[in-house]
Amino acid sequence: MAASRRFPTDHIAPGELMPDSPPPLTSADPVRRLSAAEEARTLVANSTVATLATLSGDGHPWGSLVTYGALRDGSPVLCVSVLAEHGRNLLDDPRASLVITTADTPEDPLAAGRVTLAGRATQPTGDLEHEARDAHVKAHPAAAVYAGFGDFSIWVLEVQRVRWVGGYGRMDSADAAAYRGAEADPVAPQAAYAIAHLNADHADALLVMGQELGGYPDATRARCTAADRYGLDLRLDTPRGRSSARVGFAETVTAPDGLRSATVELARRARAAAGEAAAG
Amino acid sequence: MAASRRFPTDHIAPGELMPDSPPPLTSADPVRRLSAAEEARTLVANSTVATLATLSGDGHPWGSLVTYGALRDGSPVLCVSVLAEHGRNLLDDPRASLVITTADTPEDPLAAGRVTLAGRATQPTGDLEHEARDAHVKAHPAAAVYAGFGDFSIWVLEVQRVRWVGGYGRMDSADAAAYRGAEADPVAPQAAYAIAHLNADHADALLVMGQELGGYPDATRARCTAADRYGLDLRLDTPRGRSSARVGFAETVTAPDGLRSATVELARRARAAAGEAAAG
Repeated sequence: MAASRRFPTDHIAPGELMPDSPPPLTSADPVRRLSAAEEARTLVANSTVATLATLSGDGHPWGSLVTYGALRDGSPVLCVSVLAEHGRNLLDDPRASLVITTADTPEDPLAAGRVTLAGRATQPTGDLEHEARDAHVKAHPAAAVYAGFGDFSIWVLEVQRVRWVGGYGRMDSADAAAYRGAEADPVAPQAAYAIAHLNADHADALLVMGQELGGYPDATRARCTAADRYGLDLRLDTPRGRSSARVGFAETVTAPDGLRSATVELARRARAAAGEAAAG
Repeated sequence: MAASRRFPTDHIAPGELMPDSPPPLTSADPVRRLSAAEEARTLVANSTVATLATLSGDGHPWGSLVTYGALRDGSPVLCVSVLAEHGRNLLDDPRASLVITTADTPEDPLAAGRVTLAGRATQPTGDLEHEARDAHVKAHPAAAVYAGFGDFSIWVLEVQRVRWVGGYGRMDSADAAAYRGAEADPVAPQAAYAIAHLNADHADALLVMGQELGGYPDATRARCTAADRYGLDLRLDTPRGRSSARVGFAETVTAPDGLRSATVELARRARAAAGEAAAG
């Protein structure tokens, strides 16, 4: 992929990744996407393993595997030992980054979603210490045994800067306030199953969505490539070549089990539009 | 797991992880293990994805996902764009670390093998540049398209320091010379299959190995938990409790397909010892 040639700027939508792909033939409403902050919160909420970057005594960057939980505002909680190099590093210099990668690993690793959270690690006290410890142990139950030992400490990463990469050509930054204020996409844990189900059993509905709502009335085949609380990404085959479109739900999905009904409504709306077109 | 309490020092063998486990009843020959350098080379040889830690302009540690190939001496080869933060970071300060994790992810992420390679990134020239580029593209074919663009550069990480963690209580360091001089375990890609096969179809042979060569004549059940070019790790049930043992191959395995014959020889030797014991 001619990656850098195509995305000198940030956050190009998938359709723009294919410069030779045919344009839509009819106008399609713009459909909201998860923001970088929402993408970041979603990645953080759906994993418990990360790579921590800290500074060794001589200022050399040091990477290491860690487990984490998260506070309600998305701040990651670590439990590290001073016997480990990263534990000593944090005591000397609290600057750190955390890299979290999606669990759904595509064939090309660079097509995977990932996020870097950069900030300062602090040792919480009082109620916050208890809350942070609970969040860590919930995410990594094995920590219940060792979290209380003297050489282990609970650390909260106070996120200052967020860099999200969604794969080739999808990337954006977010500031601390946007990150803390964003919500993880509630449908993310169900998305892979829903996509497989839609492609296996509802290819006809996806095609009508692409034709009627996605701007490609000449589409001959559609596949769902992504699903989130705001809508679906479709890959479309047309006689003019392959393209992509995004179709949006009538209302933002707010609960994990809301993806199915939102998709049903979307299919119904697309079929109604097709009926109107036929009647007109 | 009472992790830190049990391993204040490095590189404790699995048996020592269970302080209450029953000791062997007969003497067993010590069996060679992969060194930290060999473990590191094995992890590096069996993945193409890593997390890179670099220094941002203000000295903040920055983590990011990268793909890599490796030169014959194990030096990782990256292909990064100056449009990416890590690419700009390397131009400003070549100090970097690379974290590589095993593809066989256990249920507890902290039981996974991983390695940190710390060193300096350099831009190779001449023949080395070609060799490095080929190594990267071999590992990540998609790079063939973008590796030639002006904003992408090939970097070789000159490894200065290696920290390997094999899971709870198994960890050790290696210096640059040991890392470069070590060989990746040739049987690693076959190990998971071999372990499953031994446990499914050859539990009897594993038990005799544990009884006759592992020091546990009272073992009643054996499972293989790891296999490498030097031998097998066994988990043993005895009337005295659960323990573990390591049994060694007669000769170091030097080719990927050598694991099977080495294991057959090991089983034959264990059965011969059992026959002698019965005859005696």
